[in-house]
Amino acid sequence: MKIAIAQLNPTIGDLPGNAQKILLLAQQAAAQGARLLLTPELSLCGYPPRDLLVNPGFLEAMDVALQQLARDLPPQLAVLVGIAEENSKAHSNGGKTLFNSIALLRQGSVQRFFHKRLLPTYDVFDENRYFEPGLQANYFTLDNINIGVTVCEDLWNDEEFWGRRTYAINPIAELAVLGVDLTVNLSASPYRVGKAGFREAMLTHSAVRFQQPIIYANQVGGNDDLIFDGSSFALNRQGEVVFRLPAFKTDLQIVEFDEAQQDLRHGFVTPRYKSEDEEIWHALVLGLQDYTRKCGFSKVVLGLSGGIDSSLVAAIATAALGKENVFGVLLPSPHSSDHSITDALALAENLGIKTQILPIGELMRGYDDTLAELFAGTEFGLAEENIQSRIRGNLLMAISNKFGHLLLSTGNKSEMAVGYCTLYGDMNGGLAVIADVPKTRVYSLCHWLNSQGNLPLTYLQNRWKGEIIPQNVLTKAPSAELKPGQVDQDSLPSYDILDDILLRLINNYQSAAQIAAAGYDPVLVDRIIQMVARAEFKRRQAPPGLKITDRAFGNGWRMPIASNWVAVKNSYQSKNIPTPTLVSLDVHNAHPKIQ
Amino acid sequence: MKIAIAQLNPTIGDLPGNAQKILLLAQQAAAQGARLLLTPELSLCGYPPRDLLVNPGFLEAMDVALQQLARDLPPQLAVLVGIAEENSKAHSNGGKTLFNSIALLRQGSVQRFFHKRLLPTYDVFDENRYFEPGLQANYFTLDNINIGVTVCEDLWNDEEFWGRRTYAINPIAELAVLGVDLTVNLSASPYRVGKAGFREAMLTHSAVRFQQPIIYANQVGGNDDLIFDGSSFALNRQGEVVFRLPAFKTDLQIVEFDEAQQDLRHGFVTPRYKSEDEEIWHALVLGLQDYTRKCGFSKVVLGLSGGIDSSLVAAIATAALGKENVFGVLLPSPHSSDHSITDALALAENLGIKTQILPIGELMRGYDDTLAELFAGTEFGLAEENIQSRIRGNLLMAISNKFGHLLLSTGNKSEMAVGYCTLYGDMNGGLAVIADVPKTRVYSLCHWLNSQGNLPLTYLQNRWKGEIIPQNVLTKAPSAELKPGQVDQDSLPSYDILDDILLRLINNYQSAAQIAAAGYDPVLVDRIIQMVARAEFKRRQAPPGLKITDRAFGNGWRMPIASNWVAVKNSYQSKNIPTPTLVSLDVHNAHPKIQ
Repeated sequence: MKIAIAQLNPTIGDLPGNAQKILLLAQQAAAQGARLLLTPELSLCGYPPRDLLVNPGFLEAMDVALQQLARDLPPQLAVLVGIAEENSKAHSNGGKTLFNSIALLRQGSVQRFFHKRLLPTYDVFDENRYFEPGLQANYFTLDNINIGVTVCEDLWNDEEFWGRRTYAINPIAELAVLGVDLTVNLSASPYRVGKAGFREAMLTHSAVRFQQPIIYANQVGGNDDLIFDGSSFALNRQGEVVFRLPAFKTDLQIVEFDEAQQDLRHGFVTPRYKSEDEEIWHALVLGLQDYTRKCGFSKVVLGLSGGIDSSLVAAIATAALGKENVFGVLLPSPHSSDHSITDALALAENLGIKTQILPIGELMRGYDDTLAELFAGTEFGLAEENIQSRIRGNLLMAISNKFGHLLLSTGNKSEMAVGYCTLYGDMNGGLAVIADVPKTRVYSLCHWLNSQGNLPLTYLQNRWKGEIIPQNVLTKAPSAELKPGQVDQDSLPSYDILDDILLRLINNYQSAAQIAAAGYDPVLVDRIIQMVARAEFKRRQAPPGLKITDRAFGNGWRMPIASNWVAVKNSYQSKNIPTPTLVSLDVHNAHPKIQ
Repeated sequence: MKIAIAQLNPTIGDLPGNAQKILLLAQQAAAQGARLLLTPELSLCGYPPRDLLVNPGFLEAMDVALQQLARDLPPQLAVLVGIAEENSKAHSNGGKTLFNSIALLRQGSVQRFFHKRLLPTYDVFDENRYFEPGLQANYFTLDNINIGVTVCEDLWNDEEFWGRRTYAINPIAELAVLGVDLTVNLSASPYRVGKAGFREAMLTHSAVRFQQPIIYANQVGGNDDLIFDGSSFALNRQGEVVFRLPAFKTDLQIVEFDEAQQDLRHGFVTPRYKSEDEEIWHALVLGLQDYTRKCGFSKVVLGLSGGIDSSLVAAIATAALGKENVFGVLLPSPHSSDHSITDALALAENLGIKTQILPIGELMRGYDDTLAELFAGTEFGLAEENIQSRIRGNLLMAISNKFGHLLLSTGNKSEMAVGYCTLYGDMNGGLAVIADVPKTRVYSLCHWLNSQGNLPLTYLQNRWKGEIIPQNVLTKAPSAELKPGQVDQDSLPSYDILDDILLRLINNYQSAAQIAAAGYDPVLVDRIIQMVARAEFKRRQAPPGLKITDRAFGNGWRMPIASNWVAVKNSYQSKNIPTPTLVSLDVHNAHPKIQ
């Protein structure tokens, strides 16, 4: 039996558009002799629909679209479509008003619904906000083959693999007891570095343990901060990867279930990326491309400082949208170095993008004049530094407003973590492209990009010159250039130290004591933790940032602002270690949160 | 038996500080002969602690603080303290790693834990993200009185009162079956207009139905966007309010349980507010005061336009912080009317606050010059309007940075809904004071404030002149004054119409067809719905806004940005009504999201 995997890129809420995509792929699948088509979780509305799900009109329209789709589909093809389904017993039994469901469409009608059983409610996931868990094991029979149906998280609770349970049940264990021949998993699993490989390892464990061939069909595409990588695959009963779809691309592929062997046949296994940098690059290109496109833009604008962050973002934007759709603006001040201009222009030439130079010195004087009386007797400081950044932000937004270009924000994760960025200044933008990319990864991505000299990076659409990111951008000391001679390391430790501390703190949930025990100066660790805490008010007002790690600042990071938990102080207290003296912070913070 | 209610105002995450507050009130309660002290839900860490709960160091410190508090408390007093408690069976049984618990502290130790059973996961609540529900009815015996223990949402599922169930069980029904003498409810229930009265009506139903005296102890204070009103109360077995604490104030009161009557005795019932305006005013004053204080500020700055929004915010700030801590900045442009200055100065004089005038005309010319070449041949439009607003935003942030004043944003809910505001301009600030106050309510609050002429509004700390908000501010046509002769109603319907449409759309979840059926022009309704949808990217970057309605833009509003759900279009389609032509939108949007 031929089973088609539709690795779809839906637009959130675009019910007619998504239905049309499913229909076209179904027609192709039927033409190739497929009997069953798999689409991703919530494929009709796109994942995550978020609070569109509390809109009764939206739910009504989804049902209408589903019924219409059932009538339009090729009748001989069974199609599994993800939808939000009303829980008709919610008000009598108690419970959430919806199920996260898979509809089985066949022969012109909606034949059955299967309910997702394990509902992730952590990190970026809010499924308990909307959905009631399904209570029954889900399967159906097609051509005498019993097919188990699971939805994303349903297969993320193998207690042998994880060494613990996250939910009380493991749906595939129940399906195995029921004797299904094959389990399919319809997913909307967001990208993080290395996740595709992790999924395969995890499901391989379940395939072997429960003697189940598994077909894993994942959504692809960028939806606000989340990038879905696709990377759908199939495992045979021995847990071997017999089929793998490409990452970050819409695709339709057909997997064959051999009835005699009761197993999946070997097919085309797309090679994995050769490096994390390559994988992240493609993730960011898709994330930028989809956010731009799905918001209705075709062109972007960004500030080019000659630094590595804006250089990388410009390269990503060029790859995503084409050189003719990227506009780089140079905004030099009297504090800017000569190389800030020459490096930015060299980058723009490498990329083939249009630029404009708008010096901000006159405007800086204008602000100085306007504030002269009020600021009389004060020293040049953070206020004046931030004014420069906000002049740039204003000019870039004016260009965005005037020409309908989406403004891209270019701050990296290290900056966003410690607040080394100006709210309403360089943080401005509709999308923060590298907000989840630590500075050290920014460097490695640029080195990777430059190393691709012999590969046909055709989407960069420029004459290839052996390097994209100019050498000087890679080698000079990072600087905000907001006062004479300033470099980032005046205020911050070296980025390899900073990024490792941040990784331990943010991604690995380590305490100050644990981080210090790894060999870092406890005073420095405390200072970094303080900086992260006091930058919360900035992050709250940041644009969506593309998520590439397991813990990003965004929908999955929900911290109070007006709080007085100073992690370091309390964790030291609980261990009877004296509280260290606070080091004064020289960051571009907008207001001093913790005194 | 005397039972004390501690209506506490904790600071999120401030474990030592909150423990100290509990200790002081416990000592007072013990001195007054109380046998039991009730504190709010999660009183040790404050509610909502949000993702501090995924920090192992924080949980460890909370346990340390709890044990220390148990040792420090008066031994003869039983104290119920709210904490996050580790679920030791989570990894073996599956489930969330924490319980939302009440600890019973007595005789120097932590004697028992009670687990919250119903976990709200909707609107601003994320409890399923962290907590596992408790499975057992909670009660304990003190002086031979059996006391049922419930936590906030546990009493929000009376299916008779609601006409439906939200959860499968109703904890007070189980407690009644067990024969408890009294039920206490420890809450952290955020404020919305009229909620205190609603809570009393709801619990009166349960008290009568289950023949239970109920003591309801609620948190007070502002925590980011949420304001907790306190308004704790007690009901006797007949459902009468026998005790009511004030709203928006920290308090300690003692309720008496009469063992002979098996009921609560009558005590002091604080009168309710006389109007919604009075209630909202006090909510906003507390919300502003606590956000400012808990973030470590004492002074605030805001732009005074002479309009009603900034006038109201200035009055709230003056009431909250004192006139010496509020700095009003007038930022006139060549498009500003004369009355923008005179009205703002009259307001400032009424309030007694300091002002500064910073004209922005020179800076506007500076931007025009800088952008002249790039913008050559284009018309004055939204880009130029927004530049003005962003110059003001930059100047206000410079003052904030220079002097350590918290910048207050003054936009109202109507503007935030339709995007009639400039991102990085007038939206700038650490707190959006009236972001959940519709424009029509802004007017009624100002009229209420002016009507208080004979009351001792002592916290305004100024010489009373018979009015706070100048008459001209109340009567002139609202205008952004970003181009000559502009008034809001060039772009928007009258605010009474706009606000009613928004109320139906946002708070009442009505579809376009339902709103039109209430008598509104369908084209206008569609246009408003479009404006709300396309302003999502602005709201995502807005500061926290104080929540006063049942649906605010903030933590409880989780909408996708890059989405294509156009509610009006789809809902019309599903009813086979032709899709109306889109009206061009003349709002100050930063980029055109929907084309």
